[in-house]
Amino acid sequence: MSLTMHAATAPVFTRMLGNMLAWFDKAQVYAENRKFSADNYLVLRLAPDMLPLTRQVQIACDGAKGCMARLAGLEVPKWDDTEATLDELRARVRRTQDYVAGFTAEQLAGSETREIVVPTRTAELRFSGEDYLRHFVLPNFYFHTTTTYALLRHAGVDIGKRDYLG
Amino acid sequence: MSLTMHAATAPVFTRMLGNMLAWFDKAQVYAENRKFSADNYLVLRLAPDMLPLTRQVQIACDGAKGCMARLAGLEVPKWDDTEATLDELRARVRRTQDYVAGFTAEQLAGSETREIVVPTRTAELRFSGEDYLRHFVLPNFYFHTTTTYALLRHAGVDIGKRDYLG
Repeated sequence: MSLTMHAATAPVFTRMLGNMLAWFDKAQVYAENRKFSADNYLVLRLAPDMLPLTRQVQIACDGAKGCMARLAGLEVPKWDDTEATLDELRARVRRTQDYVAGFTAEQLAGSETREIVVPTRTAELRFSGEDYLRHFVLPNFYFHTTTTYALLRHAGVDIGKRDYLG
Repeated sequence: MSLTMHAATAPVFTRMLGNMLAWFDKAQVYAENRKFSADNYLVLRLAPDMLPLTRQVQIACDGAKGCMARLAGLEVPKWDDTEATLDELRARVRRTQDYVAGFTAEQLAGSETREIVVPTRTAELRFSGEDYLRHFVLPNFYFHTTTTYALLRHAGVDIGKRDYLG
């Protein structure tokens, strides 16, 4: 009569990150056709005081990584933000998919009531696992994936809603 | 040991739609300060072949409405897409919040295994309730809310991540 915490997380991340890899492929084709470097996408921003595409991708990945670790009660691994090419961003996405795939449903069982603590620059956010998932993880994850999509779409890449949903 | 279908839907929609109303308030302030009509936001697009803000809001609302109805096994009410002002969009959002609030957890109990049929222009999409929620409803809902946010943000409205999350 319900959704397991694993079913509400891992397949969601795996699929949308896979969709993102497909957007990158289309972005690369567009760049090749127009004869510009696909790495030029990495610095695009929707507004000068918004984060560039590289950070949108890194944060989406970190959202998935942090969610799986915290719901399983593990320390969140720290990955350096050093990606400077589209290929390196692809590797970050695949590394995230691999990390997510390493979790079993058992590891997340009961995590809807686990207390989750998320450190921020200025404070600690505290949630139940359920609230962490529905009011923090998923809105953030989709914010950064949709913004990545919007940046590529705005830049002329031939992607549509079907590519977004996968 | 899990999340109910109601807990994974109604509070998510209610909160993000409320956040959207707060973005609209900030957008209105920005328009008043700059002395332009707040209704000008409604036709903004991130790309000329993307849907304008009005449609992003309508589709986000319809996603929430359709999800609640279908998971409860009810016919999805049809609402006309006639909004032409920011105030009318606000009313659409509030009407959606009210509609969502009318559902109980009991009505959605067991819906993760219900067969859900979504008619499209060309075919019917069929999902389990679980897949409908995690691979269709939530990605679509967040796509259209994030795009609405991005349009306002891109237009200069003073909103940030905190306004997005609420």
